[in-house]
Amino acid sequence: MSTRMMTSTCTPVLPGSGDLHPLGIHDVDITDGFWHRMQTTNRDAIVPHIAEWEERTGWLHNVDAVADGSIGGCRTGREFADSEVYKFLESLAWQIGDDDSSPLTELFDSIVARVAGAQCEDGYLNTCFGSPGQRPRYSDLEWGHELYCYGHLIQAGVARLRSGHHDALVDVALRAADHICRTFGPGGLERVCGHPEIEVALVELYRATGERRYLDQARLFLERRGHHTLADIEFGRRYFLDDTPIRRASVLRGHAVRALYLASGAIDAAAETGDSELLGIVEGQYRSALARRTYLTGGMGSHHQDEAFGDDFELPPDRAYCETCAGIGSVMVAWRLLLATGDISLADVIERTLYNVVAASPRLDGRAFFYTNPLHQRVRAEEVADDRPSPRAEAQLRAPWFEVSCCPTNVSRTLAQLGAYLATTSADGLQLLQYAAGRISTALPGGGRVTVRVDTHYPDDGRIAVTVEQAPAEPWQLTLGIPRWAGGATVTVGGQTRTAEAPAHVVSGLVAGGTVVLDLPMAPRFTFPDPRIDAVRGSVAVELGPLVLCAESVDLPGDLALDAVAVDAGAAPVAADDGAEVRAMRVPVDDLATSAYGPDRPSGGRGEPRVLRLVPYYRWANRGPSTMRVWLPTLP
Amino acid sequence: MSTRMMTSTCTPVLPGSGDLHPLGIHDVDITDGFWHRMQTTNRDAIVPHIAEWEERTGWLHNVDAVADGSIGGCRTGREFADSEVYKFLESLAWQIGDDDSSPLTELFDSIVARVAGAQCEDGYLNTCFGSPGQRPRYSDLEWGHELYCYGHLIQAGVARLRSGHHDALVDVALRAADHICRTFGPGGLERVCGHPEIEVALVELYRATGERRYLDQARLFLERRGHHTLADIEFGRRYFLDDTPIRRASVLRGHAVRALYLASGAIDAAAETGDSELLGIVEGQYRSALARRTYLTGGMGSHHQDEAFGDDFELPPDRAYCETCAGIGSVMVAWRLLLATGDISLADVIERTLYNVVAASPRLDGRAFFYTNPLHQRVRAEEVADDRPSPRAEAQLRAPWFEVSCCPTNVSRTLAQLGAYLATTSADGLQLLQYAAGRISTALPGGGRVTVRVDTHYPDDGRIAVTVEQAPAEPWQLTLGIPRWAGGATVTVGGQTRTAEAPAHVVSGLVAGGTVVLDLPMAPRFTFPDPRIDAVRGSVAVELGPLVLCAESVDLPGDLALDAVAVDAGAAPVAADDGAEVRAMRVPVDDLATSAYGPDRPSGGRGEPRVLRLVPYYRWANRGPSTMRVWLPTLP
Repeated sequence: MSTRMMTSTCTPVLPGSGDLHPLGIHDVDITDGFWHRMQTTNRDAIVPHIAEWEERTGWLHNVDAVADGSIGGCRTGREFADSEVYKFLESLAWQIGDDDSSPLTELFDSIVARVAGAQCEDGYLNTCFGSPGQRPRYSDLEWGHELYCYGHLIQAGVARLRSGHHDALVDVALRAADHICRTFGPGGLERVCGHPEIEVALVELYRATGERRYLDQARLFLERRGHHTLADIEFGRRYFLDDTPIRRASVLRGHAVRALYLASGAIDAAAETGDSELLGIVEGQYRSALARRTYLTGGMGSHHQDEAFGDDFELPPDRAYCETCAGIGSVMVAWRLLLATGDISLADVIERTLYNVVAASPRLDGRAFFYTNPLHQRVRAEEVADDRPSPRAEAQLRAPWFEVSCCPTNVSRTLAQLGAYLATTSADGLQLLQYAAGRISTALPGGGRVTVRVDTHYPDDGRIAVTVEQAPAEPWQLTLGIPRWAGGATVTVGGQTRTAEAPAHVVSGLVAGGTVVLDLPMAPRFTFPDPRIDAVRGSVAVELGPLVLCAESVDLPGDLALDAVAVDAGAAPVAADDGAEVRAMRVPVDDLATSAYGPDRPSGGRGEPRVLRLVPYYRWANRGPSTMRVWLPTLP
Repeated sequence: MSTRMMTSTCTPVLPGSGDLHPLGIHDVDITDGFWHRMQTTNRDAIVPHIAEWEERTGWLHNVDAVADGSIGGCRTGREFADSEVYKFLESLAWQIGDDDSSPLTELFDSIVARVAGAQCEDGYLNTCFGSPGQRPRYSDLEWGHELYCYGHLIQAGVARLRSGHHDALVDVALRAADHICRTFGPGGLERVCGHPEIEVALVELYRATGERRYLDQARLFLERRGHHTLADIEFGRRYFLDDTPIRRASVLRGHAVRALYLASGAIDAAAETGDSELLGIVEGQYRSALARRTYLTGGMGSHHQDEAFGDDFELPPDRAYCETCAGIGSVMVAWRLLLATGDISLADVIERTLYNVVAASPRLDGRAFFYTNPLHQRVRAEEVADDRPSPRAEAQLRAPWFEVSCCPTNVSRTLAQLGAYLATTSADGLQLLQYAAGRISTALPGGGRVTVRVDTHYPDDGRIAVTVEQAPAEPWQLTLGIPRWAGGATVTVGGQTRTAEAPAHVVSGLVAGGTVVLDLPMAPRFTFPDPRIDAVRGSVAVELGPLVLCAESVDLPGDLALDAVAVDAGAAPVAADDGAEVRAMRVPVDDLATSAYGPDRPSGGRGEPRVLRLVPYYRWANRGPSTMRVWLPTLP
């Protein structure tokens, strides 16, 4: 590992060591295309939508009620409702950045003022515990989420510090962090929170402030978990990773978001302490999950009951939980591992998850969200009311808000940070990891500054032209990430075209004015599952670049139904406007059967071959209730 | 429908009308074989086991504590713990029957005396509500289970009435029933219980007493449900069938046990009121579930989260919930429908469910039970402690008791009633529906008495010899149920052998001393799923008579693993000692893969064909933790 470069401001994750260095949000300007549209939707639709719902549900009013002493009788929302306020503040903080004229500043400051009013003298801050008429502080660490809420508060404070502000929110976050260190530090309560998050937040606060006690407290929490300091629950202690100490576990297990947040904190702590053992263990857990417990979309979590990872290869498409927040958690882990290990192939995981989980959650208008992201919808869902929160997973369509509404704010803060995931720097130069039209301009650790302009319609098109607008005086390299799916990619420099192989292609000697053209093959392709994934045996999916495609009932001819169709996997899928087409046949089914089982092997498709249209998964259910499937049964 | 025959005592379900008439438990003497062993295990092991655990958990002590006024601070168990005491009483009542010298009488009477002491003057009886320090009566109908508990209390009282006793338990049950009619009758609380059960109990109490008000109250509850008298919950009102009135629903949905208990009550009410519309609606719901929402084992319920039915054809084998109690609920519904409609083919459903769900629950020694009955176990489960209750579904092995311990007592009361499911009578004669060695002796509705002796080792062997020991003077018919799976069955009478086809074969003119031999084909056979069951696409199961077989890891050679094996469905399975054998091959898998998805279609099996041994599903996990699968992938 190399040592840290004091890089630009507005960097969401900023390790003190690691092979690759993150850029700041302001180093990257996404000017057009897919992620530009998502960021615009975030600013213009998701932000006001969240602001409205946090008032409407009373979750913001909770802090007012703590301040005026009336909370005992009137608090609304689940135990963790405060965290939605803080995640929203974090989203606003990244969007404001160091732009003092941002129109979001007024909203941000007004919320901060209200939050600050609810903090106790000693730094305690929570609307669910500790006030008159409420349960005592830290009396329900299993489900109370107090430390989880602090974690998100602190992350918002870190966003402000990294953007060059030391404002009231930073003061609130620091007071809370000090309170935590006093309360849960050596000699204090030897317990952990049922939901990890404080760990990753405290390491980041250490990075932003240099105060070692925050790092030490994070490590205490990390090492303390797994020793049964939490009570047993119906789901077992595995649910909150308190079953086994992190260093003795070989798999990600239990509640998926909890597991991924904990892994993020562990990687951050390992990076700051040079703890290569811990880093290796968590990397092993995550890579095992990628190979055996991850959906094609990048989604994680197979169980509805406890929102948990299933066993290896237990990946049912219809009951996939794939919580939006677990997708975000996976991006958090992959990004941290990429920075720590320099393994650029992890950018594939981030790309896959961003396009097929994070981007799938918000409706195109940004005013409704998927909480779960199944890969198969069997029946047309009922319309969801737009004026009241849905229970988290009951909604089978995107809902405006949830009783457990972690996902909308998580999507918003992730989209706000997105620029930072596009590139890294190293002693060698600049690495482009995700492709979007725009400009990247950053100092290099080796000295000098590089500015590149990216022209592309990716992922609508596979051509990416990178023009060097400014180059350092010293020799440097431009590294282009090549996704594993992009077999046959080519790079053209100075009229010469070469094959580019995953995970990266390096171009040297570029000077200002030089252009590199990367061509990623964007023909739709079949993807098959490991034979151990029983739930999709005999099925195939179609992908197009980084996009997982799906068949949606609204695109079907009237006589085809998604529960009785089979695809000819011998005929390659062909590109079609905004998706692909495959050849399919109807499968005969007996609707009058009295039993679903019989002595005869099911026959294959019948009749004339038909064309089945496929669209990007992230866009499904934007045209009304539909049935949908990613995995398509194949003809024998 | 014909009118009711006042038949023998000890009849668990006794409709006032219907095409077929049930026998009493004492009409049937099971003397040997599978169900004899199960009944012996019930009496000698399950009964003392339950008695021990109901003391150990304090659930019996709860009634003592209500009686002495101390319950407010010391009650143990979930809201519905009382019901386990009552289901146990019902089991004991059927086992005691009209045998005043039964050694179980002392235990029964002692529990009844304790229960009686907890009843209020006005008939209210519950250990969770209504006493000092507890929540008020009926203040939580969604989850409180008060009426559900009464239902099981009343069923126990009915068992006593039907066995010729009018004892203290009957008095308690009658007082409770009258309290219910006063409290929830016209002009009273217009609500229902979150868990159906009171409906079926009140109709049976009407049948046993002739008191019309019990039937009227049952109908009120049935018609009231579905009108949102219960609050909405996270799982939605569908969970307790309060989403839609029963007459407007076309499918069984929501919590499987709740749905099946409600259906049982509706069929009973329809039978007593000649309500053929209601009967037809519920029959349609159940037949749809049989065709589309039922596992090969007869198990019902696809969701862990809410113990609920899934959508049509959503039948994952690994996450099958298949609660033991839902299997019992399905037997309750099928039996009632069989009596009401005369459709003997429903005996197939009962046979399948008894052998592959009900019999699978208890460990061979009767001291541990499955709560859920999945058809695929991916990883070896952890051993379950034998000295403390498991959470209901967390245990992947049989557990001695559960925090929600509905299944052990339900198995016990079902095994206690089992004789009654073996045969029916009608104006035509006697119908044999299930085959077990023993003697059946009953009066016929048309007059006269018939006694037959059944000699068989079924299901170890397919030969069933029925010898008429006593025949009525008038012409009569012996009807033999022929399961749908038994293609090629034959019946031999007087040296003449004829093919017998499902659902029944009728033999006339039999006189005392005559013998009929039924031969059911017991070669193991392949069974394939409907192509719409995505979760088992490309797989096959093996059945042997009424038994579903499974592969269990303890029977595998060391180099074969159940997650990478495929069966040659072109080679018929062959009989083997206590099961069957199929030809299989290893499937190549890549344990070092970094992703579970790739561009290559999975290949078939490789290497030499191997023999895969299969054993009856009901016996799995009796030889220590193992992996298991019913559905076996097939070679392409």
